[in-house]
Amino acid sequence: MFLTNMPMLMSLVIASALITLLYVFILFRRVKKVPVTNERAKEISNDIHDGAMAFLMREYKVIIPFVIVVSIVLALLGLLGTNADGVGWKAAICFLVGSLFSALAGFVGMQAATKANIRTACAAEKDGMPSALRVAFSGGALLGLCVVGLGLGGLTALLLLFTSIFDVNSAISIVTGYGLGCSMIALFGRVGGGIYTKAADVGADLVGKVEAGIPEDDPRNPAVIADNVGDNVGDVAGMGSDLTESYVGAIISCLSLSAGASDKLLFPLIICGFGAIACVLSVIFMRMRKWKNPHKALNIATYLAGAIVLVATIVVSIIMYKDNADIKWYQPVIVIASGLIAGILVGFVAELYTSSDYREVKTIAEESQTGSATNIISGFASGLKSTGLSIIILALAIAISYITLGSYGIALAAVGMLSTAGITISVDAYGPVSDNAGGIAQMSKMDESVRQITDKLDSVGNTTAAIGKGFCVGSATLTALALIVSYAVSAKIDAITFAEGGNVTPFIIGILVGAMLPYLFSALTMSSVGKAANEMIEEVRGQFKNDEGILKGTSKPNYKKCVDISTKAALKEMIIPGVLAVASPIVGGLVFGKVGLAGLLIGGLVSSIMLGIFMANSGGAWDNAKKYVEEGNFGGKGSETHKAAVTGDTVGDPLKDTSGPSLNILIKLMSIISLILAPLLASEGFTSLWELLTK
Amino acid sequence: MFLTNMPMLMSLVIASALITLLYVFILFRRVKKVPVTNERAKEISNDIHDGAMAFLMREYKVIIPFVIVVSIVLALLGLLGTNADGVGWKAAICFLVGSLFSALAGFVGMQAATKANIRTACAAEKDGMPSALRVAFSGGALLGLCVVGLGLGGLTALLLLFTSIFDVNSAISIVTGYGLGCSMIALFGRVGGGIYTKAADVGADLVGKVEAGIPEDDPRNPAVIADNVGDNVGDVAGMGSDLTESYVGAIISCLSLSAGASDKLLFPLIICGFGAIACVLSVIFMRMRKWKNPHKALNIATYLAGAIVLVATIVVSIIMYKDNADIKWYQPVIVIASGLIAGILVGFVAELYTSSDYREVKTIAEESQTGSATNIISGFASGLKSTGLSIIILALAIAISYITLGSYGIALAAVGMLSTAGITISVDAYGPVSDNAGGIAQMSKMDESVRQITDKLDSVGNTTAAIGKGFCVGSATLTALALIVSYAVSAKIDAITFAEGGNVTPFIIGILVGAMLPYLFSALTMSSVGKAANEMIEEVRGQFKNDEGILKGTSKPNYKKCVDISTKAALKEMIIPGVLAVASPIVGGLVFGKVGLAGLLIGGLVSSIMLGIFMANSGGAWDNAKKYVEEGNFGGKGSETHKAAVTGDTVGDPLKDTSGPSLNILIKLMSIISLILAPLLASEGFTSLWELLTK
Repeated sequence: MFLTNMPMLMSLVIASALITLLYVFILFRRVKKVPVTNERAKEISNDIHDGAMAFLMREYKVIIPFVIVVSIVLALLGLLGTNADGVGWKAAICFLVGSLFSALAGFVGMQAATKANIRTACAAEKDGMPSALRVAFSGGALLGLCVVGLGLGGLTALLLLFTSIFDVNSAISIVTGYGLGCSMIALFGRVGGGIYTKAADVGADLVGKVEAGIPEDDPRNPAVIADNVGDNVGDVAGMGSDLTESYVGAIISCLSLSAGASDKLLFPLIICGFGAIACVLSVIFMRMRKWKNPHKALNIATYLAGAIVLVATIVVSIIMYKDNADIKWYQPVIVIASGLIAGILVGFVAELYTSSDYREVKTIAEESQTGSATNIISGFASGLKSTGLSIIILALAIAISYITLGSYGIALAAVGMLSTAGITISVDAYGPVSDNAGGIAQMSKMDESVRQITDKLDSVGNTTAAIGKGFCVGSATLTALALIVSYAVSAKIDAITFAEGGNVTPFIIGILVGAMLPYLFSALTMSSVGKAANEMIEEVRGQFKNDEGILKGTSKPNYKKCVDISTKAALKEMIIPGVLAVASPIVGGLVFGKVGLAGLLIGGLVSSIMLGIFMANSGGAWDNAKKYVEEGNFGGKGSETHKAAVTGDTVGDPLKDTSGPSLNILIKLMSIISLILAPLLASEGFTSLWELLTK
Repeated sequence: MFLTNMPMLMSLVIASALITLLYVFILFRRVKKVPVTNERAKEISNDIHDGAMAFLMREYKVIIPFVIVVSIVLALLGLLGTNADGVGWKAAICFLVGSLFSALAGFVGMQAATKANIRTACAAEKDGMPSALRVAFSGGALLGLCVVGLGLGGLTALLLLFTSIFDVNSAISIVTGYGLGCSMIALFGRVGGGIYTKAADVGADLVGKVEAGIPEDDPRNPAVIADNVGDNVGDVAGMGSDLTESYVGAIISCLSLSAGASDKLLFPLIICGFGAIACVLSVIFMRMRKWKNPHKALNIATYLAGAIVLVATIVVSIIMYKDNADIKWYQPVIVIASGLIAGILVGFVAELYTSSDYREVKTIAEESQTGSATNIISGFASGLKSTGLSIIILALAIAISYITLGSYGIALAAVGMLSTAGITISVDAYGPVSDNAGGIAQMSKMDESVRQITDKLDSVGNTTAAIGKGFCVGSATLTALALIVSYAVSAKIDAITFAEGGNVTPFIIGILVGAMLPYLFSALTMSSVGKAANEMIEEVRGQFKNDEGILKGTSKPNYKKCVDISTKAALKEMIIPGVLAVASPIVGGLVFGKVGLAGLLIGGLVSSIMLGIFMANSGGAWDNAKKYVEEGNFGGKGSETHKAAVTGDTVGDPLKDTSGPSLNILIKLMSIISLILAPLLASEGFTSLWELLTK
């Protein structure tokens, strides 16, 4: 069988990743070629670009020492002599490469987004909607394809390298470090980015819109550039790093559960290879046509990539499994399909609960007529309720994939869901690019018709953002669960026993404590946004007060200072949540042992998903209920209803853009750290505090 | 050893319960003897009394057919021939008695509270603070002691009866039905009562205070009687039934985990017997002295009862275990003490997060200066954070009790926490009595000095209510966990196995789905409050519109109609959440099997506690932040800050008084139903859907 030639097949997967990256290179040149015609817009765009890069550079300065310390710890742990390949210098190298590649993807994505935003506005000015859509989507696609190309290519290359030096099983353990690297970048990207973007947003809105009475995206607002930078920092780099982590994590858990069987190991890699190519084809197809309806265009791009992957899966399955005694060819197809479909459905549930086309958002808008309190309660209840359908879909996907292919099936379903991550990220990142384009058009006083086009693009972007958030939670759930299963296998947990003296009690206590962590983590990130926003408010107020020319439009506000405040605050405020995320699985393992840590992870997973779905959907629903009122319903803009709806929107902001998405990272990071710790916790020499106390 | 005479010891426990009930009879006569001097007050008090009784009677009309159906189902299930004593006609009898006794306790408590409220006002008018405090506390104590007397007496009597007819193990299974009866009443009491009280409260406030601009407790407001009835229905009967369920549930799980060993079986009963007497002594002591400071008085009552129980535990332990080879005498003492202390500490954490004496509430009040949105976010974050300390305390109590006495230790810790439930309920129910007294004083235009006394009593009542809510969640956690452990033992779950084909996957899916249920349940109860409040608002608006004399004070509003609306809405709206609570463990067991159901329960437990603590503490904090502003801080009453703080208070109302407390019932009810189903699910003839699909 051709499976025997593993190096060749892995090389083909790497080739598909390289083709994807080559296309990124070509596409980037094309985007940059779109002419920038408006000088004022150019200046603003440069400010945003510089602000975004300044944040990234400062973030890297914080990350680099962190990464170095973790590498050294990983390398030193290898000296413990437990024979665990998840630690040691090889794992440290993988960790470094993973961090570097994930950071690189974020860097490219940010460059792309900040080049594409102004070009979207200019294209809209020159050629109208189809051109503007093409540029905006391409800007997002650069991040999406870069994530897939670097994530898949880097991981497979390292796997190939270490497989050729050591054996397959060692290589799989070693490359887990790659996932840890991606997780570490995601932690900083999502948490820091989330705090940044909301501090700037709330600060800009509260002083600018509410106190000074100037419109959104007004160049007189000192925080306006920071606000636009925030869209890139949070929704581009943050979101991208989140899905990179899921993408890589899903593949790693498949590898880890393959038990070194070449078919189980190669299958997910090959599917991801086809997935990368499918995303490239889908982007090319998308760029070839002149789309009038952006929503339809983005949907077609998503479905097209999914369809290509599904066909490829069928073909690959038949070739690989037609003569296999254990696995029928249709089994992997069912699993991949259930992952893909669950991803789409979870996104659809998010749309159902957050789009004003459906009943929930309309009800919230209606309830705003009796004031802020009923608006809040209604959105709160709606978000709580939205967990129902989402969890049933995810539970079905888990059940189907497990019944079909066992534990490995769960990991494979995660790969299926994420195989088209390239296109999902593209669609998701298109939103902030369009949003920025609108801001630039507004600030550089482009024609009203340009703003109309960018508004249309932006409104579609709001829907895709909600769907994207649903997808992020869904994929994080499957990935984290697959990683937890891998952890249990790696830690050699056979059973949780109920008899007296059994290990069910540390397990249950672990679940309790683990379930509490996401609540604490959310509280921390939420307070951080509040603190950072307050600093921003003080600064903007101060600038207005010290130079009256700013509000008259005669002197330029100090944008840089605001960008600086958001940057500093975000970096400072992410330290405590970051330490909590990294320390809790380590402390959990030391105190409760390997079974207790399994409980901690399961408890953490459960609370993270529930709170994550609730926060994302409540926040999205409040946002769109406000927009629905602004469209003229229940009194329209400026009415008491509108004021009430604005309260909901403001409450929802940190929920949906900071605390909620950060939970995806928390649980994946905890899981991957545990996976790396597993062999140490399972080694004979290790005794947990619980064991010390009970024996 | 004296343990051999089990019937005699059980009879002594029953005797202590009877003594408690005898004291209830004496105390009730004393309370009724307090003279009612104000005719106008008498009329209002009668309205409240009649409204409360009308609700109870209508509730019973809904419950009776429900109880009959469940009894028949229980009796019929006995015909399945699985030899499970948890079902069958004997269990059905226990179920009937449990329902009856729990309902009776609620009835007596409600009678007492509605007699004591007016007498508190009159005592304040005539003799001042110490007398008023004595009457208010006695009103609460009648409920507390009745719950303990009926709960303990009924359960022990049935156990004695069935032990003498059948063997001990059968008798233990049979009396589980008694717990189910208490749970059923608690479901209706807590959910229905919670919806009633908040619909009336929100309706009365929004139209009366906000729209018509009349003060709180103004007799011109048609919903004012319904609002006062609601305090009794929700905070007296609802809270009482919740703690009855915990109290009985904790004892049952001890019995169930005793494996028929006479020491393990008798010990918790004896401790509860002493607990009942300790509560009576504490109430007598409390009534003997003239207290100036109500907060101090209530604390001393609580600590006194706890100290008596602790001393009794030490004495009983030494007598019972001094010659025991397996259990050292200090082990049960450690366990009981850890439960008692954890109960007090969890209450203290609630106080820390909800009292304006501490930082959290002050911060929320401060954040209200920038509007409703920051007020909401701040309270939200504070509630999320409060889960941290609470969970650590509970986890420590679980760990200590398990390490000391194994699984049985967890159940015994729950008994320890609840052994002084009599006094906890007394302190808790004292709050609504004082609140009502204030309302009656206001409505009957008593002297300002009377209102000052009742305001003082009421403000202490707010703190004790928050502590009580913390205690309710804490005790529900331990009780539910003990019941789940009992379920696992009864369902003969040996282990959760991780190997391929093992049962970990249905377990995990169970956890996921179970963790979602409290979110769904909360969404349902929250929406119910909204719907019911809207009906109330319409009615009050209509009355104001149709008869202009009402607002002028020349014609009497139709109080009865408002009471009727709350009653009907509460009974209608509790059906769907009720069905969800009863059906989910049954469906869960059929679909996922016994291990999957264990997961469902654990997931449900975890989400219920977290959401429950979060909602109770956020709600309490918003309430007291508003009061803190009203005391003159950050602008005081009528300022913009105050308006923002009112929003938080209104949002918090359904969270802390309806949805949050209802979760205690959800998880205990699910657990006890599962305990009853356990032998059926464990029987050889049973195959779950999951097993059908995987085998």
